[in-house]
Amino acid sequence: MKLFSIITFLLVAHIGLSQSTDEMTIRQIFNKALSEGKSYQMLDYLSNKIGARLSGSPGAAAAVEWSRHTMEDLGFDSVWLQPVMVPHWVRGQKEVGRILNSKKMGTVEVNVCALGGSIGTGPEGISAGIIEVKSFQELAQLGIKNVQGKIVFFNRPMDPNQINTFAAYGGAVEQRGSGASEAAKYGAVAALVRSMGSNVDDAPHTGGMRYAPNVAKIPALAISTRHAELLSKLLKDDKSLQFYMESHCEILEDAPSYNVIGELRGGEYKDEIIVVGGHLDSWDLAQGAHDDGSGCVQSIEVLRILSSMGYKPKRTIRAVMFMNEENGLRGGLKYAEEAQKKKEKHLAAIESDRGGFTPRGFTISAEEAARKRIQAWKPLLEPYGLADFSQEGGGADIGPLANQGTALIGFLPDSQRYFDYHHTAIDTFDKVNKRELELGAASMASMVYLLDKYGLK
Amino acid sequence: MKLFSIITFLLVAHIGLSQSTDEMTIRQIFNKALSEGKSYQMLDYLSNKIGARLSGSPGAAAAVEWSRHTMEDLGFDSVWLQPVMVPHWVRGQKEVGRILNSKKMGTVEVNVCALGGSIGTGPEGISAGIIEVKSFQELAQLGIKNVQGKIVFFNRPMDPNQINTFAAYGGAVEQRGSGASEAAKYGAVAALVRSMGSNVDDAPHTGGMRYAPNVAKIPALAISTRHAELLSKLLKDDKSLQFYMESHCEILEDAPSYNVIGELRGGEYKDEIIVVGGHLDSWDLAQGAHDDGSGCVQSIEVLRILSSMGYKPKRTIRAVMFMNEENGLRGGLKYAEEAQKKKEKHLAAIESDRGGFTPRGFTISAEEAARKRIQAWKPLLEPYGLADFSQEGGGADIGPLANQGTALIGFLPDSQRYFDYHHTAIDTFDKVNKRELELGAASMASMVYLLDKYGLK
Repeated sequence: MKLFSIITFLLVAHIGLSQSTDEMTIRQIFNKALSEGKSYQMLDYLSNKIGARLSGSPGAAAAVEWSRHTMEDLGFDSVWLQPVMVPHWVRGQKEVGRILNSKKMGTVEVNVCALGGSIGTGPEGISAGIIEVKSFQELAQLGIKNVQGKIVFFNRPMDPNQINTFAAYGGAVEQRGSGASEAAKYGAVAALVRSMGSNVDDAPHTGGMRYAPNVAKIPALAISTRHAELLSKLLKDDKSLQFYMESHCEILEDAPSYNVIGELRGGEYKDEIIVVGGHLDSWDLAQGAHDDGSGCVQSIEVLRILSSMGYKPKRTIRAVMFMNEENGLRGGLKYAEEAQKKKEKHLAAIESDRGGFTPRGFTISAEEAARKRIQAWKPLLEPYGLADFSQEGGGADIGPLANQGTALIGFLPDSQRYFDYHHTAIDTFDKVNKRELELGAASMASMVYLLDKYGLK
Repeated sequence: MKLFSIITFLLVAHIGLSQSTDEMTIRQIFNKALSEGKSYQMLDYLSNKIGARLSGSPGAAAAVEWSRHTMEDLGFDSVWLQPVMVPHWVRGQKEVGRILNSKKMGTVEVNVCALGGSIGTGPEGISAGIIEVKSFQELAQLGIKNVQGKIVFFNRPMDPNQINTFAAYGGAVEQRGSGASEAAKYGAVAALVRSMGSNVDDAPHTGGMRYAPNVAKIPALAISTRHAELLSKLLKDDKSLQFYMESHCEILEDAPSYNVIGELRGGEYKDEIIVVGGHLDSWDLAQGAHDDGSGCVQSIEVLRILSSMGYKPKRTIRAVMFMNEENGLRGGLKYAEEAQKKKEKHLAAIESDRGGFTPRGFTISAEEAARKRIQAWKPLLEPYGLADFSQEGGGADIGPLANQGTALIGFLPDSQRYFDYHHTAIDTFDKVNKRELELGAASMASMVYLLDKYGLK
C-alpha cells in the first residue's frame, strides 16, 4: 500500500510536471506567434506581390520560388521541390452574362465567371432560353422536353440554417461540380450556377467542375448570388426570358509544377514524419489570401516558431505547400505516392485550408486510439479558444496519406466568414486579421509540438 | 423498488422530453435569426442612415426616435422613453498633431484625436517638449523636474500575448482614463496617449477620460498606434523633439436624452423582468457599428424572434437601449434607479457590448446557484459555438442592477477583431458580418428563453 502510494505520488508529480512543461511550451509558442510572428508579413507578400496563382500560371511559378526562398532564408534543415504535372486551365478574357429580354428591365448585365475546368462558349457566345431548377431531381423531372436547347440555371442556395458553413457548402456544391453534365444529359446547351456563397453580394464565385464521361461537354458559369436572386425573380414573371453568355476559357496541356517542402530533421525518431501544410495554388480571380495563402504561411510559421524557440524535434517535421488542390489535387496525390515509394512513415498530417480565421479546434480522422490521444490534449488548447475536437475530417491534400494509416488532422477556424470570400475576387489580404492568422499558426505549432513529443501510440 | 424505478423512469422521460423541447426551440430561434433575421438590416439603417450618436448629439436624438419607431413597428407590447440627463461633450473642428523638429524627418503630421471629456487646447494650440513613459510608475520616477512644462506621451501597448483582447485593453486603458491627471500632477501641459488598439494602423482611437479632483485639467489626445511607434522611434534618437497639438473640444451643459425600452409582457410571473440590452450612444468619430450598434439591434431582434415564434413568455422581457455608456453611464444608472423606485424585480440582465462577432459563450456575474444553473445550459448552446461559460462579467449598463441581486450576463463573442475598430472612424457597417451578427442575436434569444422558462431558483 505504501509503495503504491509512492508510485501514485510519483506518477501524479510526473504528470503534474509534464503538464506544466506543456502548458509553458504552448504559452511560449503563442507568445512567439503574437509578439514576433511572421505569418502576416509573409501573407502580405504572397497576396499582394504574387497574388493569383492557379496551377500552371506564372503566379503559381512565382509562388513556388517564393516559398522555396522563404524557407531557405529561415534556415530550415532542408528545402526542396517535388515535381508534379498539373492541369492547365485558362480563363481567357472576361466573361459576359446578360438577361436579354426582361419585360420589367429589358437587357440586364449580370456578374458571371466561368467555372474552373469548363470549356468556353467561344466568341460567338450562347443565346438561349433559361430554366431554373433547385435540384438534380427537379431537373430529371423536367426531362428532355423542357430542358433541350436551354441553359439550366441551378439556384439552390447554401442552407443558411447550417451553423457550420462547410456543411452548407457540402449541401450545395454538387450543382457546381456536376451541374453541367447533369444538364447536358437532358440536352441543355449550358449551365449557369448560383455562386457558392453564404451571403448575397455581387462577386461571382468560381470553383472546380468536372465533366462526366460520355456526356456532351457544355459551358458552365457561376452567377453572383445577388444576380441569381434577380434572375430568379424575373423568371417567375416571365418564363420566356432569354439569356446570353460568353466565356473564353480553354483547357491546355498539363504543365510542370512543384510541391514545395521544408523540413526540420528529427532526432530520436527521425524516420517518423509529421506534415503541416496548405495548398499553394489559388483560383485565378484573386489573391487567395484566405484560400489558401493563410494555410501556407501558417505552415511555414509553425516550423519557424519551433526552430526560433530552439526546439529540437524528436520526429521530422515538414511544411508542405501542396500544388493544385483547386483543380486536380495532383500535388497531394504526388506527395503520398512519393512517400509510398520511399517507404516514408508519416505519423500525422495537419492541413489548414479553411481560412485564416479565429481558431475553434481541430478535426480528426484517425484510428480510435490516436483520436482519443489527440482529444486528450484539448485542456491544453482550450485556453486559446480551441474547444471543438469532435468532428471527423482532415484535408484534401493530406487525404491521400490515409492509405498508410497516417492520422489526418484539420485545423478548424471559425467558419462564418469563409464563404463570403471563397473563390472570389474579394479573397484579398485586407480580409485577413493579423491576430486571427497568428493564433491559427500557434494552434498548429502547438499540435505539432504535442504530436512530436508524445507520438500517437 | 418498483415504484422507485417508475419514478426514475418518469423523471428520465420528463428530462428527456424537456431537453428535446429546448433543443427544438433553440434550433427554431437560430433558424429564425439566420433565415429571416432583421438584425443586419436594422444595423444598416442605424449605421449608415443615422451614424455617429454621441450623447447629447443630434445623432443620438435620431437614434432614440429610430429605436422607438422600430420597436413600435414590430408590435411589442409596450415601448417607452425613460428620460435621463447626459453629459454633452463636443469635439469641435478636427485636431492637429505635429512632430516639429525631427532631425531625420523635419515636421511630421500625425493622426490624433481628442479623448472624450478632455478640455481643448484652444486655437493657439500647445507646443512643448515631449517625454515618453510606459507606466505611471515611470512617470512618478521622472518627477516634476523632468516632466514640468512638457507633453507626456503614454506609450504602453496593449499586450499582444493576451488571448482575450479585453484583458489586454484592461491592462492599458488607465493611460487613457487617468493619464492626463497623472501627468498634470508633475506639471505636464498635455497628455498624448497611444491609441487603445490591438493592431498597428493609422486610425486614432478616442474614448473616455476623467480628470481627478483638485488636479489641473490639461488636454488629452490619442495618437494612432502607427504614429505612436514613429514618435517613439524618433524620440530615441532625439530627446529634444518638440510637439504641437491643437484641439477644440468643449464640455457643454448636460443635455436631456433617453433610454429606449421595448417590452413583451409576461404571463405567469409578469413581475419578474429579464432585460436584454446594449448602448445606443456611440463615439462621435464613426458609425459605432460594432460599438454598440450591434448590441442594440441584437437586443431588439431577441424580442422580435421570440414574438415571431408566437412564444408567450412567463416573465416580462425588455429590450433596453441604454444611453450614454461611453462617457457617463447615466442611462444604466437611471434605469437601475427607476427600477429601485418602482420596486421592479429584475431576475437577470444580458448585455451585448463586445461587438457583433461570432459567439463564444456568456460571462456570468451571479450568486453561485444561479451561475451553476446558467452553466448547466451549456450543452444546449455548445452546438452553436458557445463553449465558454467560465468567465466573470456582465456589462457596464446592467452593472448598476447588481444592487438588487440581478444575475448579470454578458454576451461573449470572439474578441480578436474588436480593438481594431473600437472607438475609431473605421467602426463601420462593412466590418460587421451578417451571419456573425445573427448568430449573436440567436444566442441571446436562446439565453432569454431559458431564463424565462426555468428562472434561476
